[in-house]
Amino acid sequence: MKAVIAEIITIGDEILFGQIVDTNSAWMGTELTKIGIRVKQITSISDSADHIVQALEDAKTRADVILITGGLGPTKDDLTKHVLATYFHTTLKLHEPSLADIKAIFDRRGIAVTELNRQQAFLPEACKAVRNVLGTAPGMWFEQEGKVFVSMPGVPFEMKRMMTDTVLPHLKAYFRTPEIIHKVVQTVGIPESILAERLEEWETNLPEHLKLAYLPNLSGVRLRLTGTGSDAAKLEQELQTEVEKLPHLIPNHIFAFGEVKLEEAIGQLLKERGLTIATAESCTGGYLAHKITSISGSSAYYQGSVIAYHNEVKIKELNVKPETLLQHGAVSEATVREMAENVRQKFGTDIGVATSGIAGPDGGTAEKPVGTIWIAYADKDKTVVRLLNYNKDRLLNIEYTATALLNLVRQSLTGAVEE
Amino acid sequence: MKAVIAEIITIGDEILFGQIVDTNSAWMGTELTKIGIRVKQITSISDSADHIVQALEDAKTRADVILITGGLGPTKDDLTKHVLATYFHTTLKLHEPSLADIKAIFDRRGIAVTELNRQQAFLPEACKAVRNVLGTAPGMWFEQEGKVFVSMPGVPFEMKRMMTDTVLPHLKAYFRTPEIIHKVVQTVGIPESILAERLEEWETNLPEHLKLAYLPNLSGVRLRLTGTGSDAAKLEQELQTEVEKLPHLIPNHIFAFGEVKLEEAIGQLLKERGLTIATAESCTGGYLAHKITSISGSSAYYQGSVIAYHNEVKIKELNVKPETLLQHGAVSEATVREMAENVRQKFGTDIGVATSGIAGPDGGTAEKPVGTIWIAYADKDKTVVRLLNYNKDRLLNIEYTATALLNLVRQSLTGAVEE
Repeated sequence: MKAVIAEIITIGDEILFGQIVDTNSAWMGTELTKIGIRVKQITSISDSADHIVQALEDAKTRADVILITGGLGPTKDDLTKHVLATYFHTTLKLHEPSLADIKAIFDRRGIAVTELNRQQAFLPEACKAVRNVLGTAPGMWFEQEGKVFVSMPGVPFEMKRMMTDTVLPHLKAYFRTPEIIHKVVQTVGIPESILAERLEEWETNLPEHLKLAYLPNLSGVRLRLTGTGSDAAKLEQELQTEVEKLPHLIPNHIFAFGEVKLEEAIGQLLKERGLTIATAESCTGGYLAHKITSISGSSAYYQGSVIAYHNEVKIKELNVKPETLLQHGAVSEATVREMAENVRQKFGTDIGVATSGIAGPDGGTAEKPVGTIWIAYADKDKTVVRLLNYNKDRLLNIEYTATALLNLVRQSLTGAVEE
Repeated sequence: MKAVIAEIITIGDEILFGQIVDTNSAWMGTELTKIGIRVKQITSISDSADHIVQALEDAKTRADVILITGGLGPTKDDLTKHVLATYFHTTLKLHEPSLADIKAIFDRRGIAVTELNRQQAFLPEACKAVRNVLGTAPGMWFEQEGKVFVSMPGVPFEMKRMMTDTVLPHLKAYFRTPEIIHKVVQTVGIPESILAERLEEWETNLPEHLKLAYLPNLSGVRLRLTGTGSDAAKLEQELQTEVEKLPHLIPNHIFAFGEVKLEEAIGQLLKERGLTIATAESCTGGYLAHKITSISGSSAYYQGSVIAYHNEVKIKELNVKPETLLQHGAVSEATVREMAENVRQKFGTDIGVATSGIAGPDGGTAEKPVGTIWIAYADKDKTVVRLLNYNKDRLLNIEYTATALLNLVRQSLTGAVEE
């Protein structure tokens, strides 16, 4: 079955000039993918008639469905509706149900419909109106030679409601789309290139209709396996079979299946085992605690933290021995070990973790350059200490350290081996 | 002078499938606008050779400079480099300086360069390499018939560093763009609409070649005044004259001139006055400490924090009276006041600040719904407490609370009035 191809066109200078980030297209891409429509291009253009026509002409050569957002406001720099009317050789005509919707919005505000807003109810005769209950610009659905063109406002909550209520169900029906299913596997602590080497043979042997994508982010590499076909149950089974091979190929690096963050997976582990955790941070300065507490429900396992930015705080609040600091320095195996063990004792938790390092850009020495970072994990049975060497900027050093420490917690709890 | 036109092409299915939001293009749009280059189209396409070539051909008809991101990873689904080599009728050749950069990255990790990563140092002979010190994929700069094509990785921090260090200065020189000077004024604690009312008359009276933009972000509204012309010194003077009028129009809301973050401005204030600060966090869970310590040099004024997620920690580590918690609850004026005053005492700092609230999505009650958040500032003379009422999601509540607290520190130190 040939895949249905979509193209998204966003109209408006604010995206081009970087004044707003285009989050609409990502949302649309996700929703279209879910119903088996493949987005092949997203094009952001300016509010100019020539440019709109050119984008439509180009899109038509590539796509079966063209979704257009923006340029439907009531002011004269909003051209989309007029351009579409000309493009489809049709004229504007008052659409009574749309006028009723617009009036209802003004009624709720307790004011009369302005002339500019009344004109928004005039739609090209050749289109079907797409109802907009949240704003004054109705959408438009055109069909031409088996292709569908839909124009919607750029206001995110209006567009999303119109897509969900009308556009997506109509597209699914119109194109009788294939089934597309994704499975995501989350890895940590293994670079993309090494991952690719380990998975090469497996990937090469995947059936043609299953595709693998590597999606790296700051805390690891997400693997996304996508299957396309006509039988959802069969696809699901095939994907599951392939995904189940991965723990054997990369046994120590998978922390979750599905859209789960590392801090969420650690939280889940702690909850399942009924364990509590406390943190002692120096160089990460609260970021580790923030990551842990960004997860809703973290109060079930997270007790608190001492951020010991100064040595005096390390001594007074974390009972680090002054002689340890004197002999080894704050950035040392001995110090981070005491921090983790002592915060665990102090807060009465099952697990204590700690960071101490030089985040930079200043404070490095020949012996301990910027990026020299110690992390530690302590529980009732053992203390595990690791030395990290990053050479990124301050915020990246902090980010990677938090990830490395969360991964150390995962490894310590699951017995996954550091490679 | 004719405007220089740019087009941005992003390559990769993850944007089309909506798995990541394209924030790169907005950043690039902003930076290009700043040097007088106008982005006319942003095109997101899939990792397919035909599609890449078609996008390049289309872009060439509209733009003077084509900036391409993505598709430079070491795996076989990354095609950009090979497509560009074919497109510019050139072949790949080992680029020694790039290999040295890649080796340096692996050296720091203490592992040998993999073959896949070594291949990333092979670049089309017709290009100039754009150095990437943060990752293994070098960028490529091509020139053809007066037009410039630049290919960079899609990893945001790598792309940004390469743009800032190399691409933007080279584009400025290559196209001899007009003088464009920006002055940024940072405001906090005033909504965009009220700001616009206060500045309306001033904005209307600006000379034609000076333009104002309102750039709201999570911690406030940035005002950017842009002057375009041929005489840099004259422009600078004109902008300065206009900017100096602003403190009279919005006296209590400007925290900095230029690209300065709120936490940086607070840090500067504390440093100038020789003051130290400690934090006690409940609902912000370390994010406030992270904001403060994200600023390099913060160890000069930041002492540390107690993150008291649990009541027991509030009692044991922050000496909050058990009867205060019993009588008023953890989310209360009385508790947050004790937290701020006690952390100040405990850490022996000039200033203590504290947060306690319900970040959500769970934990709200009829009396104290999600978004009920108390913040406090304490110094030797006074304690100031404020109640915030946000109704955002968990992360936004945390974000806004940290900003409100930093603003409270600013107001307390400078005597700026809450309006």
